[in-house]
Amino acid sequence: MTGRHFLNVPGPTNVPDRILNVMHVPMEDHRNPNFPKLTLPLFEQLKRLFRTTTGQAFIFPATGTGSWEAVLTNTLSQGDKVLSPRFGQFSSLWIDLAQRHGLDVVIQDEEWGTGASPERIGQALADDKGHEIKAVMVVQNETATGVASDIAAVRRAIDAASHPALLFVDGVSSIGSLDFRMDEWKVDGAITGSQKGLMLPAGLGIACVSQKALEAQKAARNNNPLRRAYFDFDDQSKANKDGYFPYTPSIPMLYGLRESLTMLLDEEGLDNVIARHSYLAGGVRAAVLDGWKLKLCAQEPKWYSDTVSAIMVPDGFNGADVIKRAFLRYNLATGAGLAKMAGKLFRIGHLGDLNELMCLAAITGAEMAMRDVGIKVEAGSGAAAAEEFYRANSLENTLQKAAE
Amino acid sequence: MTGRHFLNVPGPTNVPDRILNVMHVPMEDHRNPNFPKLTLPLFEQLKRLFRTTTGQAFIFPATGTGSWEAVLTNTLSQGDKVLSPRFGQFSSLWIDLAQRHGLDVVIQDEEWGTGASPERIGQALADDKGHEIKAVMVVQNETATGVASDIAAVRRAIDAASHPALLFVDGVSSIGSLDFRMDEWKVDGAITGSQKGLMLPAGLGIACVSQKALEAQKAARNNNPLRRAYFDFDDQSKANKDGYFPYTPSIPMLYGLRESLTMLLDEEGLDNVIARHSYLAGGVRAAVLDGWKLKLCAQEPKWYSDTVSAIMVPDGFNGADVIKRAFLRYNLATGAGLAKMAGKLFRIGHLGDLNELMCLAAITGAEMAMRDVGIKVEAGSGAAAAEEFYRANSLENTLQKAAE
Amino acid sequence: MTGRHFLNVPGPTNVPDRILNVMHVPMEDHRNPNFPKLTLPLFEQLKRLFRTTTGQAFIFPATGTGSWEAVLTNTLSQGDKVLSPRFGQFSSLWIDLAQRHGLDVVIQDEEWGTGASPERIGQALADDKGHEIKAVMVVQNETATGVASDIAAVRRAIDAASHPALLFVDGVSSIGSLDFRMDEWKVDGAITGSQKGLMLPAGLGIACVSQKALEAQKAARNNNPLRRAYFDFDDQSKANKDGYFPYTPSIPMLYGLRESLTMLLDEEGLDNVIARHSYLAGGVRAAVLDGWKLKLCAQEPKWYSDTVSAIMVPDGFNGADVIKRAFLRYNLATGAGLAKMAGKLFRIGHLGDLNELMCLAAITGAEMAMRDVGIKVEAGSGAAAAEEFYRANSLENTLQKAAE
Amino acid sequence: MTGRHFLNVPGPTNVPDRILNVMHVPMEDHRNPNFPKLTLPLFEQLKRLFRTTTGQAFIFPATGTGSWEAVLTNTLSQGDKVLSPRFGQFSSLWIDLAQRHGLDVVIQDEEWGTGASPERIGQALADDKGHEIKAVMVVQNETATGVASDIAAVRRAIDAASHPALLFVDGVSSIGSLDFRMDEWKVDGAITGSQKGLMLPAGLGIACVSQKALEAQKAARNNNPLRRAYFDFDDQSKANKDGYFPYTPSIPMLYGLRESLTMLLDEEGLDNVIARHSYLAGGVRAAVLDGWKLKLCAQEPKWYSDTVSAIMVPDGFNGADVIKRAFLRYNLATGAGLAKMAGKLFRIGHLGDLNELMCLAAITGAEMAMRDVGIKVEAGSGAAAAEEFYRANSLENTLQKAAE
Repeated sequence: MTGRHFLNVPGPTNVPDRILNVMHVPMEDHRNPNFPKLTLPLFEQLKRLFRTTTGQAFIFPATGTGSWEAVLTNTLSQGDKVLSPRFGQFSSLWIDLAQRHGLDVVIQDEEWGTGASPERIGQALADDKGHEIKAVMVVQNETATGVASDIAAVRRAIDAASHPALLFVDGVSSIGSLDFRMDEWKVDGAITGSQKGLMLPAGLGIACVSQKALEAQKAARNNNPLRRAYFDFDDQSKANKDGYFPYTPSIPMLYGLRESLTMLLDEEGLDNVIARHSYLAGGVRAAVLDGWKLKLCAQEPKWYSDTVSAIMVPDGFNGADVIKRAFLRYNLATGAGLAKMAGKLFRIGHLGDLNELMCLAAITGAEMAMRDVGIKVEAGSGAAAAEEFYRANSLENTLQKAAE
Repeated sequence: MTGRHFLNVPGPTNVPDRILNVMHVPMEDHRNPNFPKLTLPLFEQLKRLFRTTTGQAFIFPATGTGSWEAVLTNTLSQGDKVLSPRFGQFSSLWIDLAQRHGLDVVIQDEEWGTGASPERIGQALADDKGHEIKAVMVVQNETATGVASDIAAVRRAIDAASHPALLFVDGVSSIGSLDFRMDEWKVDGAITGSQKGLMLPAGLGIACVSQKALEAQKAARNNNPLRRAYFDFDDQSKANKDGYFPYTPSIPMLYGLRESLTMLLDEEGLDNVIARHSYLAGGVRAAVLDGWKLKLCAQEPKWYSDTVSAIMVPDGFNGADVIKRAFLRYNLATGAGLAKMAGKLFRIGHLGDLNELMCLAAITGAEMAMRDVGIKVEAGSGAAAAEEFYRANSLENTLQKAAE
Repeated sequence: MTGRHFLNVPGPTNVPDRILNVMHVPMEDHRNPNFPKLTLPLFEQLKRLFRTTTGQAFIFPATGTGSWEAVLTNTLSQGDKVLSPRFGQFSSLWIDLAQRHGLDVVIQDEEWGTGASPERIGQALADDKGHEIKAVMVVQNETATGVASDIAAVRRAIDAASHPALLFVDGVSSIGSLDFRMDEWKVDGAITGSQKGLMLPAGLGIACVSQKALEAQKAARNNNPLRRAYFDFDDQSKANKDGYFPYTPSIPMLYGLRESLTMLLDEEGLDNVIARHSYLAGGVRAAVLDGWKLKLCAQEPKWYSDTVSAIMVPDGFNGADVIKRAFLRYNLATGAGLAKMAGKLFRIGHLGDLNELMCLAAITGAEMAMRDVGIKVEAGSGAAAAEEFYRANSLENTLQKAAE
Repeated sequence: MTGRHFLNVPGPTNVPDRILNVMHVPMEDHRNPNFPKLTLPLFEQLKRLFRTTTGQAFIFPATGTGSWEAVLTNTLSQGDKVLSPRFGQFSSLWIDLAQRHGLDVVIQDEEWGTGASPERIGQALADDKGHEIKAVMVVQNETATGVASDIAAVRRAIDAASHPALLFVDGVSSIGSLDFRMDEWKVDGAITGSQKGLMLPAGLGIACVSQKALEAQKAARNNNPLRRAYFDFDDQSKANKDGYFPYTPSIPMLYGLRESLTMLLDEEGLDNVIARHSYLAGGVRAAVLDGWKLKLCAQEPKWYSDTVSAIMVPDGFNGADVIKRAFLRYNLATGAGLAKMAGKLFRIGHLGDLNELMCLAAITGAEMAMRDVGIKVEAGSGAAAAEEFYRANSLENTLQKAAE
């Protein structure tokens, strides 16, 4: 079929034309004297994205997974103990990665559809009198279930236990879309990838670490550190401070990153970006809950993610059939259920470069696909609910509500 | 607002990314020895688009209006009489252009919302015993009212009157979208622009003329011909036959045209393209008539255009308010009522590079905009009707119906 | 062969990547309420390009040839007498166009390799006691021979004759590259195309006319005006004043034009642009005259064009062989000799988006091609002369010399 | 300055417009059912690039450095001994990377300007009776000195010693440009990056490994393997076999890679690509040696690299001054001397998407820059020598010579 494909997976997200355009550049010598004019401001802009003034940002030619590896291997020693709740595919994968690098992960399983439990984390730290736990790893937004965890509460729990553990946060599908405050929440390592809220193709693994984490790195050096070379912070730091990189960066991605950060930080403004995600998500949830009368995987409103909604299909139906029908018949890409949620749900991503009609297109497409496979949702019901939500709300009032 | 703007005016239409990409080319010498490899096939492809084997195609760096001028000034003499029905803004403009060039236009006014009357045309020609009428000018698809006229019937009327007048057809918003058959209908001059069914930016004025028209051109030369230079067929013919142009062509547009014609003729196939326009139009009309319970400007199904729907707003409302609201609040561009239809309607274009969800996005956007200005249409009603239409139909069965 | 093709014809010229990028845009409704924010500044910027504060600029979806037609058909009456020197292919074509529109052209033939004679023009006007000559048409830069005429001197000659004729200037290969001053020289109609100094693809025919020319237009209306519709100034004026156009413009070209004008006027500055053309031309002429010891078609330094050099090949050789060899073997496009210069020369265009190494690439390519066909130029001699010219000069000192 | 910048560093290389264009694509779900149609052929094409039918290719979102890490960490165990000659910056860096991962590197220092010594390698292996050396690591083309080593001879030396060590080759600046034969030379691990011969932006780290290497990987699993997660072969293999990836790939880079491989393998042909590099390099070397009478860092013709020439500046001059002058005054990027060669040389890269005039532009630019800083080379001498080389040779005869 002709026309534009509608991309509503929770990443990669739609890349705006103007970003694709600035990426359409001739290559240049990445050691040329003008190069730092491009690169040095990027590190400062990234700090604004992470909302830190004291942290340090790193840009790896990699993905979010690579940033995970970078944060762990640079700051911890072989066999260190870390604590991590597990409540979805991506929290599981991060734990797996830590284990492969020889870390001893204390896992707190939570029900899928819920998120990190500040209480349990606090308890575990309080119990850890010897401070063997060196870091707490939390996924802020579990993309597999559409669940957002409360990082501020996790920080409060750590503080309440007076525990020195580092706080590491996976912000792949949250940073640049949901509220994230590195300094205020005293996050020691936060990571993201380029293909989500940053509205870029995949290919940049971005990390931001606190001074405390950098101190931990120094300490680890003499203490059987984890092995690394490609992801070494020191190599980056040494070159980055003058605006260069230890190996060849992707020139188009750096130009794209500059455009993205300019759009998010300077043109739209991060508070507006976050409000926009909330506003657009509201329409999708209205369609699901009020229009279609279906359930979300996220069990309570407090877990609802503003970047992705995981929609449970009724018993007897397979989410994969909806996804396939939507893709092949209606030019609509939605996300599958993963691992223990395989078949039980389908996911509509609503992060990145979107607007009301793009969300409505996804809703009408999902509506048709569900009816085609026999799910009893009323034609137009999701569209009607979302339309009325958008008419009754706006970016402005969403922002106002957030401020209250 | 972020995200993609939805363009549903009846031209310019959405340009597919792959066409924009092939237009992103370095310039080249338009007199280089390899240039004809690009250009000569274009003329042959255009003939396939017009469905002629005997005609000759011309490509002007201009717009559809320029093609109008080219066809008239090359084939007629000063003061010639021509016959033209008038039933909308674009038929009016063509008549005006003819008059400015000193032609004596016999105008047949038809009600806006209807189209050319083969009966009246036949009668006028039958009455013209002296064969003073040199040409009949008909707009196949009146973009202002969403009305398609029956060109085959016009041809039959001309033949029934045994009249030698040339038949000129404005196919700007029909060729490459609606059924058009130059040879079968014995059309002597047909014109289009690049920014409609061809899915290109504006900038090419395309004409295709019959051998009979070229004979008329030769005859006119010695008979006080209309003045022309930029739009002269002979200059083009002389250069075109070797693959060149009398003045510098737009290199990107030629590459774009090649891509467009390849997509329409070789990949999708013209019959499928026409069926697709009919299928997508069906959904929009279902929304208007069955969902919203509104009226089209086109008075009867036989006048319905598959490329644009002109939707009458209820008394007491102004179509311009709907358009403005849709544009400024919902990122949706729709077309205004023109001339005597100003304020009475708004238009949804559904030609070019579209699909079901793009039409549904436009429908939901129009729905919200109408409700916002107070028009009593039910939320989701247009979406529901269109969804059910699309679910019940398909390209395949539309094509089959067309073949029956 | 791989790599970049070198384009050194005198138009179309190289389009900078950043211009191609801004042209890679989705289409939009050309009647949308935000459109004038794009278009209105263009008319003002164009006036700065023509160096006029009192004139009015027009943008046609056409080429320079179309602008010629626009200026003549809007301001003159049928059968009017105009005066024009003829000294190359493009002055010949303009005269031909005027004749086709029924104008009575008084032709002053000058030797090819020279240009307009202010003395002869002045004499003809002085002899025209009845002021039958309504306009003087001069090509500022004759692209076919690499000859620049002195428009300021032509103006002085007209004034000395106290003659009211309009002064029309073809600035297709000069405006935006060579010194041109519409107001100071009291030019009444100046035209250019997008594909030369403006560094855009072909597709815009640009005209700028004085208030005197607009008065002439009004007078001509009641005096058997030349026929026109597509190129009518009034239709444009009426729509342009609000930022719109009478028919669909090319959206990408308008964005490209904005970028081009920003680059020329606001970033580089018109004086610098002109100095750059002079500086780069100097290197090419050094190669031709000092390195290769060949002759230019332009007979004296006062005729030398800073946008194109027409290089005479020695007797017994055919310029076409050089051009063909350069194109097919060395990826270099140069211009052919036209009409009476066919075979006798080849042309290196040096206008638009170029720099020293691009000129040197063309010089080395021409050098190899000439040696390949047997012309006795020394290997490296052109490169050496140009290199030394560029080393001894610079944009800065060229600008300084121009100011002195 | 306006115009195109000339990029003659040995990577990143010029990306052809057609590759940048195919990278200008909307994102898509990397788990969609059509995705394998894009990805599966890539793995097969890569095998053709490496000239292997039995090996397995991997594509990491990383750089060449990442591929180094992948090959080592997947196939070796902690503390393994490896052998590596060191004769430039990049061989030094690879050794450093191995050491950081805890490998015990036996280093054979060779003079910079020479390369790997098959004799010394053979001797070391013959001396290693216990087969403690698990792998031999050789940089095929040392980018820092413009030296190509003879990998076939290294293989013969290993075989002569009847040693089972794996053979790992860094082909970052050779594969896709110089002759490389994975199967014929029994290379067990070869790596490259996207930003050199593949004419893409940086961002893909590509590795190809033999079945023997994959067997070694399996054996290492139970033998204290090196730690890895991001660069794990098994994760890739599992997903790749169905056309997917374990984490989000860069969609644009995959489309770019397809275009690049199509150009190299199917359109131009790998033998022609290699011959082209040899032909173009010949012209640059003619300029250096015959024109400028300067020396290359590579000490003998047998070490000459066809992808980069490192040019020694005369005593008393600093290569960095030449580079800076060329960059800032003449829009030409050349490479610096690195580590112990800092200041002593500058490098002209001649790999990737280039042609004769692009090389000549670099030569004339370097010529001017050298003269500007006082180096006594004759104006035009390099250009003359290169021109005569290109005129006397061609792709065809270079290919023929290579075949003899």
